[in-house]
Amino acid sequence: MGRMARFHYASTKDADMRYLVGTAVADPFFCVENGEGAFAFLSVLEIGSFREHGKKGVTAVPLEPLMEKARAAGAGASPHALAKRILARYGPPGTDLSVSAHLPLDMADALRADGARLRVADPFLPERAVKSPEEVAAIRESCARTALAFLRIEEILRESAIDGAALRWKGEPLTSERLKREAGRVLFDADMENADGIIISSGAHAAMPHHAGEGLVRPHATIVCDIFPRSVRTGYFADMTRTYVKGEPSETAARMYAAVAAAQDAGFAAIRAGVEGKDAHQAAAAVIRDSGFGAGEATPDSVPGFIHGLGHGLGLEVHEPPRMGAHASGTLTAGNVVTVEPGLYHPEHGGVRIEDVVLVTEDGCEKLSEHPRELVIA
Amino acid sequence: MGRMARFHYASTKDADMRYLVGTAVADPFFCVENGEGAFAFLSVLEIGSFREHGKKGVTAVPLEPLMEKARAAGAGASPHALAKRILARYGPPGTDLSVSAHLPLDMADALRADGARLRVADPFLPERAVKSPEEVAAIRESCARTALAFLRIEEILRESAIDGAALRWKGEPLTSERLKREAGRVLFDADMENADGIIISSGAHAAMPHHAGEGLVRPHATIVCDIFPRSVRTGYFADMTRTYVKGEPSETAARMYAAVAAAQDAGFAAIRAGVEGKDAHQAAAAVIRDSGFGAGEATPDSVPGFIHGLGHGLGLEVHEPPRMGAHASGTLTAGNVVTVEPGLYHPEHGGVRIEDVVLVTEDGCEKLSEHPRELVIA
Repeated sequence: MGRMARFHYASTKDADMRYLVGTAVADPFFCVENGEGAFAFLSVLEIGSFREHGKKGVTAVPLEPLMEKARAAGAGASPHALAKRILARYGPPGTDLSVSAHLPLDMADALRADGARLRVADPFLPERAVKSPEEVAAIRESCARTALAFLRIEEILRESAIDGAALRWKGEPLTSERLKREAGRVLFDADMENADGIIISSGAHAAMPHHAGEGLVRPHATIVCDIFPRSVRTGYFADMTRTYVKGEPSETAARMYAAVAAAQDAGFAAIRAGVEGKDAHQAAAAVIRDSGFGAGEATPDSVPGFIHGLGHGLGLEVHEPPRMGAHASGTLTAGNVVTVEPGLYHPEHGGVRIEDVVLVTEDGCEKLSEHPRELVIA
Repeated sequence: MGRMARFHYASTKDADMRYLVGTAVADPFFCVENGEGAFAFLSVLEIGSFREHGKKGVTAVPLEPLMEKARAAGAGASPHALAKRILARYGPPGTDLSVSAHLPLDMADALRADGARLRVADPFLPERAVKSPEEVAAIRESCARTALAFLRIEEILRESAIDGAALRWKGEPLTSERLKREAGRVLFDADMENADGIIISSGAHAAMPHHAGEGLVRPHATIVCDIFPRSVRTGYFADMTRTYVKGEPSETAARMYAAVAAAQDAGFAAIRAGVEGKDAHQAAAAVIRDSGFGAGEATPDSVPGFIHGLGHGLGLEVHEPPRMGAHASGTLTAGNVVTVEPGLYHPEHGGVRIEDVVLVTEDGCEKLSEHPRELVIA
């Protein structure tokens, strides 16, 4: 076997790059991990801050001398020219370069034209799927802060009055937008950022799992609240969902809720190291079916039943491996952190989803998100 | 010339995809633009919301039937298998496929192995560099909201008292973290999100242009405040910087500030359609040099002088084409929106940067960010 190296070019908005260097860098930069160690190539704009905050063991190499040499050699100082210059020293010919699927395609084309042996690794950093105790603590902290937003939503729903087909709070109609703003403020104060928004949807919108929600929050209808912010400090996400009804749920909605809660319990019971992701999903889907609802019977334009997977890995990305779904491949491992989020969607009776976060252990799972799951808010 | 199509696979965190479809979609999806129109391929989780909010003229195509067919054909329903199936219909053999450098490399490899003719276009959507009146209005709005954060920072600095080597505000030492939190709260209330953080740095940190700032804000030292949030609603960024001193600036810092302000004015005067980006940069750099400071003389580990470019395009990304810097290629066009942000950095006297946003016009430029530039806060 020849030499091997990992090679990447991205900003730390790329979760793999964030994991490799352990701090935030706004603009794309090069990183190489080879037999000698890990190296990040940084401009004078970044290197001072990086040396203070970057992961121990990653050597920060000044980029400007490389740029000067590339310009002096008449090659310009484009990212492609710099990549060739860096690889000549840190991943020379004969090295197998493991790269991310997110390496820029034009850079890959240029390097391959120059003879580099690039192989896409998917996932690029498989070690990310098994969380360290520090990562578990960071996710647990993110979930605890996210629970504060649910407390705030419940408080507002309690304080709201039913007024015909609307709710009123502090004298004004209660909308998804207002609830999202109030939840967002709690998260802001807890140093969490809503990188991908917040879902608070009711009525017909709640029957569309990824509808962010807008307009009036309806009494007697399900209100799906799916909150998935990340810690500004650590970068680790939470991902939790609760479903509420202010007023009287329909009998069907109440049955949907009971089925989803039971399916979540079945998911918790099924999850442990060595279980296939699709088997954990089927354990929950069986409970849904036993409750008289559909699972996996999606049609293009309507959304009956349990139409998505049981859950997904969570970490520096809100969706990452491993997956638990009807068609998922792969087995759960101790140290995986996954969501457990069965849901049911009905064009007339809205949506119900309950989502928590667990750590997979050798003999089961440990909940990292702690918050009650009550449907009706009085 | 044969058939041509644009092909992309990304979430709308990718600015090109956001531009193509005009709304937010959290998970990656396919989009094809060919002679027949523009098509987005979306799962049942997304399609309802997309049809309400997506750009007019983009046809939403349900993904699940394609997945069923791919599974029935024994190919599985991986993104690669779906890409092949979509291209068979929307970009058949013989089509030149223009793709983004951000198309996943493994997907590109699989499609090319299957005979697809992929060519990376950089930029993928060159039309993004010329802003429509709606885009200009969105950026102007983002800048106006960002100015509120500067007002808040100035208010806090005015209210602060000098206490030896520290500032005190509301009885507690004033830190970068507190100022960022207060500025962030103003932005949150204005529905702006700090996708990439906020820089508020003083003292030695301010001499590192991309240091985010931390710890005590120092009296008599420059405080660089660089704020670049995006509108949650429109997705368009602002990018503005002001530099303050609470107390008495050093004579050198005051000279740096005057030089940077004059260089910014020279930048404004130089910018118009038809000017090369590097010439606009040199107009500002000449003023810096005439003021007795360096421009472009960076060394790896120290940061004297004007060590970065004059500015960059701004839109759905905080850094996008065109660039204005010593080595930038390309010419400004009417409708470009660019930052104008000269800076000076000195290991002893800290950093000074002033940044505004302008619209390039046929005969000059129009400022889109409006806020006073005063160094000293009494």
